[in-house]
Amino acid sequence: MREVVVAGVGMSEFGLLPDRTLREMGEQAVFKALVDAGMRPRDVQASYYGYCLGKLNGQECMPGHLVLHGLGITSIPIIRIESACASGSVAFREAYRNVAAGLYDIVLAMGLEKMTGSPSADIRRAMAGGADNELEGNLGITFPGVFGLIANRHMHDFGTTREQMALVSVKNRGNAARNPLAQFREPVTVEQVMSSRMIARPLRLLECSALSDGCSAAILTTPEQARRFAAGKPVFVKAAVLGGGQLRDDADLVSFPASARAAREAYEAAGIGPEDVDLAEVHDCFSIAEIVHCEDLGFCAKGEGGKLVESGATRIGGRIPVNPSGGLIGKGHPLGATGVAQVVEVVNQLRGRCGERQVEGAAVGLTQTLGGFSHGDVLSVAVTVLAS
Amino acid sequence: MREVVVAGVGMSEFGLLPDRTLREMGEQAVFKALVDAGMRPRDVQASYYGYCLGKLNGQECMPGHLVLHGLGITSIPIIRIESACASGSVAFREAYRNVAAGLYDIVLAMGLEKMTGSPSADIRRAMAGGADNELEGNLGITFPGVFGLIANRHMHDFGTTREQMALVSVKNRGNAARNPLAQFREPVTVEQVMSSRMIARPLRLLECSALSDGCSAAILTTPEQARRFAAGKPVFVKAAVLGGGQLRDDADLVSFPASARAAREAYEAAGIGPEDVDLAEVHDCFSIAEIVHCEDLGFCAKGEGGKLVESGATRIGGRIPVNPSGGLIGKGHPLGATGVAQVVEVVNQLRGRCGERQVEGAAVGLTQTLGGFSHGDVLSVAVTVLAS
Repeated sequence: MREVVVAGVGMSEFGLLPDRTLREMGEQAVFKALVDAGMRPRDVQASYYGYCLGKLNGQECMPGHLVLHGLGITSIPIIRIESACASGSVAFREAYRNVAAGLYDIVLAMGLEKMTGSPSADIRRAMAGGADNELEGNLGITFPGVFGLIANRHMHDFGTTREQMALVSVKNRGNAARNPLAQFREPVTVEQVMSSRMIARPLRLLECSALSDGCSAAILTTPEQARRFAAGKPVFVKAAVLGGGQLRDDADLVSFPASARAAREAYEAAGIGPEDVDLAEVHDCFSIAEIVHCEDLGFCAKGEGGKLVESGATRIGGRIPVNPSGGLIGKGHPLGATGVAQVVEVVNQLRGRCGERQVEGAAVGLTQTLGGFSHGDVLSVAVTVLAS
Repeated sequence: MREVVVAGVGMSEFGLLPDRTLREMGEQAVFKALVDAGMRPRDVQASYYGYCLGKLNGQECMPGHLVLHGLGITSIPIIRIESACASGSVAFREAYRNVAAGLYDIVLAMGLEKMTGSPSADIRRAMAGGADNELEGNLGITFPGVFGLIANRHMHDFGTTREQMALVSVKNRGNAARNPLAQFREPVTVEQVMSSRMIARPLRLLECSALSDGCSAAILTTPEQARRFAAGKPVFVKAAVLGGGQLRDDADLVSFPASARAAREAYEAAGIGPEDVDLAEVHDCFSIAEIVHCEDLGFCAKGEGGKLVESGATRIGGRIPVNPSGGLIGKGHPLGATGVAQVVEVVNQLRGRCGERQVEGAAVGLTQTLGGFSHGDVLSVAVTVLAS
């Protein structure tokens, strides 16, 4: 396997953007990534892209072809990956493996999603299709419901408090306030979080990621090719792991075994341990999710995730900053775009380009993304390790 | 790159099957393929699967995980590919490249689709998303419309006749009558085709592939692994090419340049020419499509496709049998399942297991699948060459 680097990244603004089309946002993200890598459209040999909810916005199939057509990129293999909320991460992983295996030298990973503009019933129905719709959908156990159960169980087993969960949102919204492309640019307080509308007991509105539009892009290549294009400092992809869930009906709901396994595999591939990670972008679809992930990723012991956020360790400037971009709660969560956007943030952090939200001296970063949930485990988990 | 073989194949019945779930059909296809390969569920290391219209049947995302869960296959990477009607073929291509590059030894390719059971307006809207919905969808140029234009232009430029087009349906329905898993088991006559309901001038109902439910599976591995499992005679994958469209607005509509290019690339990779192909499964979504494909694939000169079918050369027993399975028109076209189902037919033909519809002495087979259409070219074309 060859060494692989990210030579360029880009993303559009994330948010409720009713006037912006998927194509326009996608072109913008790719254009930025090409400029960042010092490449032209014709240098791209293949593209893998994440796109989740084809049901919405009319473009059921293959929007990636249309985005790239706008930039003059045609006649190459362009492949859509769908892995629910992990669609973008899995596309990144496929792009990585193609370059690593020598199948292509320059591959574009994209994340595309346009969630707003559809009737909310359509959106809810589409989202329910990220779990086992026949079983869980018909029982009404939507994603907020699943994470509400997880939160209750975590509080029961480990004494995690409502305040600790709220602090995840306070931290991530605070970080997003320093991210010009984020959806939510206003910080919030613990009091605001805990008095916001109840969504799925005990989770309240400000603890949930919101509907969002946005696109993201990253260009993967070899170190030699990156140098040839005189791009900025390349960032090495040390591991890009896709783990599958075990789908056990006897899961205890305070851990995602697939996530813990994928993390172990990624650490081993990268030759590091969790203590070597300088910052992480993790899948905080709900406040409790970030707490569970910090445990599964080994940033603290099982059950200690609430105390970890309370201690300030996961803030920018803390021991292990988590979601400096603002995360899904602050930056936004356009499903198919999220995984690649996490990579965009880590690459920018490792290059020291994050201004007000820069993690000083960051050399190793990690991304973790969940895709779907069913039968007591997540269906897919992607973990990526990047290093300068 | 390592040699790759197909060690086992399977498919469910295709057709209007309102009482059968996606999961049930998928499990059946995979179970047959495992038995065929002499493998157990735990031998599968990864799965790529095609699935197109998540909009329908409630399972928007990741049905592959749920199908495989039913067979006890969990904890492995399971990756959905969507490439409109070529979804299954592209999944097969990804599986092939993973084995060829040494990334995995045993990969399962699946094709999944459940099209019936939704309101027809939903189906039409979803299908429109296989083209550029903003441009072509809003202009009302659906797939029957596109292929109607192509038919008219082919008739104008080359003198192709209505009878020649009808003969494609007569041949394919005749072949399907000998395929126990096909959707349409009744042969039809030229008169029946030409008096069936008008769909998009000049194309009539019996010249169109229909809505269909069904699933398909193929197991790819190395020749060494295939032998280890004492499977039947493996079939070699000599090429699996994915071509991208040029999206030109000045296309002449009597050829798909992406298809011709993908075929040339596949022939070169396989070290053969079109004259070496003993049978082909091509994308006859409409009668005229098969005529155009025979030309683009080099089975005859451009403009001679109508005469080719009229001559009987594409019948079983002819010089180059095309769609011995019945094709999309006869066997059925559950979108995401089609590409892998084409491989299932070719593998069964090369193993001499096709009974009444067997192409005698077949040693080299080809599949060709279109995915989407926009701006005068198809968005994706997959061409596979298989040899015993």
